[in-house]
Amino acid sequence: MQTLGQQARFASRGMAMATRADKDAAILAIADELEANVTKLIDDNKKDLEAGKDKGLDAALLDRLAITEGGVAAMAEGCRQVAALADPIGEVADMSYLPSGIQVGKMRVPLGVIGIVYESRPNVTVDAAILCLKSGNATILRGGSEAIYSNKAIATCIASALAKTGLPEHAVQVVGTTDRTAVGELITMPDYVDVIVPRGGKGLIERISRDASVPVIKHLDGICHVYLDNEADFTKGMAIAVNAKTHRYGVCNAMETLLVHEDRASEFLPPLCQEYLARGVELRGCARTRRIVTMNVATEEDWQTEYLAPILSIKVVTSIDEAIEHIARYSSAHTESIVTENYTSSRRFIQQVDSSSVMVNASTRFADGFEYGLGAEIGISTDKLHARGPVGLQGLTSQKYVVYGDGHIRQ
Amino acid sequence: MQTLGQQARFASRGMAMATRADKDAAILAIADELEANVTKLIDDNKKDLEAGKDKGLDAALLDRLAITEGGVAAMAEGCRQVAALADPIGEVADMSYLPSGIQVGKMRVPLGVIGIVYESRPNVTVDAAILCLKSGNATILRGGSEAIYSNKAIATCIASALAKTGLPEHAVQVVGTTDRTAVGELITMPDYVDVIVPRGGKGLIERISRDASVPVIKHLDGICHVYLDNEADFTKGMAIAVNAKTHRYGVCNAMETLLVHEDRASEFLPPLCQEYLARGVELRGCARTRRIVTMNVATEEDWQTEYLAPILSIKVVTSIDEAIEHIARYSSAHTESIVTENYTSSRRFIQQVDSSSVMVNASTRFADGFEYGLGAEIGISTDKLHARGPVGLQGLTSQKYVVYGDGHIRQ
Repeated sequence: MQTLGQQARFASRGMAMATRADKDAAILAIADELEANVTKLIDDNKKDLEAGKDKGLDAALLDRLAITEGGVAAMAEGCRQVAALADPIGEVADMSYLPSGIQVGKMRVPLGVIGIVYESRPNVTVDAAILCLKSGNATILRGGSEAIYSNKAIATCIASALAKTGLPEHAVQVVGTTDRTAVGELITMPDYVDVIVPRGGKGLIERISRDASVPVIKHLDGICHVYLDNEADFTKGMAIAVNAKTHRYGVCNAMETLLVHEDRASEFLPPLCQEYLARGVELRGCARTRRIVTMNVATEEDWQTEYLAPILSIKVVTSIDEAIEHIARYSSAHTESIVTENYTSSRRFIQQVDSSSVMVNASTRFADGFEYGLGAEIGISTDKLHARGPVGLQGLTSQKYVVYGDGHIRQ
Repeated sequence: MQTLGQQARFASRGMAMATRADKDAAILAIADELEANVTKLIDDNKKDLEAGKDKGLDAALLDRLAITEGGVAAMAEGCRQVAALADPIGEVADMSYLPSGIQVGKMRVPLGVIGIVYESRPNVTVDAAILCLKSGNATILRGGSEAIYSNKAIATCIASALAKTGLPEHAVQVVGTTDRTAVGELITMPDYVDVIVPRGGKGLIERISRDASVPVIKHLDGICHVYLDNEADFTKGMAIAVNAKTHRYGVCNAMETLLVHEDRASEFLPPLCQEYLARGVELRGCARTRRIVTMNVATEEDWQTEYLAPILSIKVVTSIDEAIEHIARYSSAHTESIVTENYTSSRRFIQQVDSSSVMVNASTRFADGFEYGLGAEIGISTDKLHARGPVGLQGLTSQKYVVYGDGHIRQ
């Protein structure tokens, strides 16, 4: 790992100076290599799938692990989209003259070396590599052992694409060992690694956050709430509450708890619950909810749980204040949405809810880098420092002050 | 400390919602309280000064510790300047409609609770308090034991100012104990403290960075370089090289190493060295420098040293590449400046030098929050994540995504 680290640090200096043309050419070359090697990718992926079956991985995990022809096409398409994004590096903001006569601005620069630790999905290898390349960083990728053949096959495509273009050969390095101590080393090399982005389950992220001696951009729980206000539009409220829960279940921006104002509970809950039950969602409610619709009781633990499953907890609240209080107490500060036609309530909710995304009259499912126009994302940060919410190219950069003078000295 | 932490966390919620008018009123009230209590401040400060003399603190330290009438006036003036700054909170950037129809922007929000650990200078108590108030944060201030009476007197002024206005009473808390374990607790309460800003010597900052379990905004060494290019203007080069070293010695943005292109060494070095010697600066040079001007030899250790004193190391380089290489190897990535009239060299230096401030034809002494127009600074970050370079109000904030829809759901 030390050698990989040194090589990455060296490569990062070349990456910081790479032109947009070189970076885009490399990313497009990766797309071409992936498409040219689709048969090999699928064959090598089969080795992982077979080993996974032997190890008894569950169907959902095997599904995430599988590479199909369509999957390769999607990876290549992702490359072409990232190549088309503007280059964030070198962008200068807020350039202005100060009273002393110097001109000061902030120039966007790469972070340096980004270590990415992730689980099963092999497409992360491509996504992470191209986002780091586009943002001028070198990267060390450490995928899960269950995807080792797939990741090595993808790494070969990336390496041959880099070799065909002008970028440093060690700009992207895929850790070839499945040895678990490799992760421990990667996250404790502050001389060679500037930031770690873990992608995977809560256990992985908590372990890395605890053990890392380099900064970590974390992506933790999404206990997201929708609050149907007393002035909610009925049609919008129904559509958003259904979409936020049922559009996809295993995602961090799905709603886990629905809050309903008491004035509207008997109007919203019966048709909503019917819709949820029709879609196979298990419902758990507070006492007041259960007086309107029969369902299991929601316990204290329910309010604290990210189900990532077709389960929903429901609470009736007496006011927007109680809704905001409940969110302050139980939310993981990921994404919350209010449904209301009231001007003051919408402003209060936006101002007082301290989550990475706060919405009015929109489904929590929109909390996503693509939907926010970032082009792509490397994860959704639940940290408040550096990057918060969906992290795109900008989250993988820093800034430096640039100062232009004409012989200026401090008086 | 747990109690202080809980109180701060509670106060931070009130602070996040405080209006600009309330925050400015509190900051102006602090200025008034300080001025009204100038005699008490000076009297209490005398207790610290006497204790310091008994403990044998050196003259420089006692000087930093002293509160004078002029010092109180400067603190009050600082308050009035910060009150006049724009409120960063609630500012929304990049609001735009996305193809789905939702409108997305980024709203600036406070970090929450900021812990500040600092040494001797009592004016930091005021500076830190007002910057945190203005940026909507609650703060816990832990000053040095040598300034305990002074800090308590200032804390009384701040408390009575807060009591007169609408802000939470625990928005600013000054730790009243000199017990050293208090720092250890403060920096390991992630539930109550969102970020730690250490201000003081290298030892303090390294200790806190090592032991903290909450994020730290660090301010480490300033090993700053000025490079006189082969196309440097002679007058600008002389002025900048003298100013960067001699304007003040004990500051992080002072030049510690001068790099001179070989083509100009015999022109620049004799008059420059004469100027330095006249001002009492000790010179240490590389072999080529010493062939031009007699001086002590600069060792490997010199290139790695932040003197914070009237000492300068000088190296003759054969090219801008060697200058950039030397900086990459020895700089602390704080501030570097090139003096040149050459377009391409100026662009290369700006692009390739990876420091928090990179300058052309300006003295490194400009690397400062006031000089950059930030209004005030809480320190100069040598980190690349979150805040880099001089940290003003913006560095004490985060952002959240705000999303406005009209019943939008994800397709």
